[in-house]
Amino acid sequence: MTTSSISIRPAVESDLSEIVRMLADDPLGSQRERSVDPLPNSYYAAFEAIQQDSNNELVVAEAKDGGIIAVLQLTFTPYITHQGGWRATIEAVRVDSQYRGSGLGRDLLTWAICRAQNHGCHLVQLTTDKERPKALKFYESLGFMASHEGMKLKLSEWPRNVT
Amino acid sequence: MTTSSISIRPAVESDLSEIVRMLADDPLGSQRERSVDPLPNSYYAAFEAIQQDSNNELVVAEAKDGGIIAVLQLTFTPYITHQGGWRATIEAVRVDSQYRGSGLGRDLLTWAICRAQNHGCHLVQLTTDKERPKALKFYESLGFMASHEGMKLKLSEWPRNVT
Repeated sequence: MTTSSISIRPAVESDLSEIVRMLADDPLGSQRERSVDPLPNSYYAAFEAIQQDSNNELVVAEAKDGGIIAVLQLTFTPYITHQGGWRATIEAVRVDSQYRGSGLGRDLLTWAICRAQNHGCHLVQLTTDKERPKALKFYESLGFMASHEGMKLKLSEWPRNVT
Repeated sequence: MTTSSISIRPAVESDLSEIVRMLADDPLGSQRERSVDPLPNSYYAAFEAIQQDSNNELVVAEAKDGGIIAVLQLTFTPYITHQGGWRATIEAVRVDSQYRGSGLGRDLLTWAICRAQNHGCHLVQLTTDKERPKALKFYESLGFMASHEGMKLKLSEWPRNVT
């Protein structure tokens, strides 16, 4: 798909350092990523696992000059609920800081929603950190409803966090 | 795993009608499931897709008499974020109405969290409908934090729901 001069395509391994750079360029991401050269092997292992799984797609947006300017991951999951309906989960959305507010995020999400629809999903879901109020408004403008609580349990702290 | 007289095991196809019965026995589930005999084929297709996917596990709790009394689905997903960390997603949790408040839900969730830990996940996540305040408290007691908004977009309404 091409949005004016931008193309959206599956990520390849050589995109990985640019993807991690974008993930780390953010107040939350900077605390948990390691955008160093060479990248930690764990990033390559995860990339390979995503490639091997037909229900996972890592997608990038590429500028006219070939630079990687946005990323997201799409996961398709079959569930028994909703009469055996498939869902798509969108995660790890990041737009290069220079392109925020340009409409690129909207184009990328719209692409992902269409992809989910073509895959036969009845629902697209995502969670967004409550510390990102702008992101919440953005997803609401695309039609998402914050009908659920998004709950996380860090296994490094478990079972100390059980009450 | 056995919790007193209850065993937790992977679901088999012959459990499906009991699983759907439990999913439908709930104010939200009754609106979206079809617990009829024979079950709609879409349930069997979803069961088969789950079985074929090594990153998806449908798990049931079985009482001593062989009855199916709880269900959940566990999905393992590799992500680039968190330095290439795997996550486990828990969905479609349901405990038979006769066993609610018995501690069975807690045993089943604890089993799933241990399973995620053994699988090398750094995080377990789930979303819970804001119309289920008791469920929120239950998950918090297990160590989950409602740090995120859980956003859903119904594709049957899209793009009419775009603003």
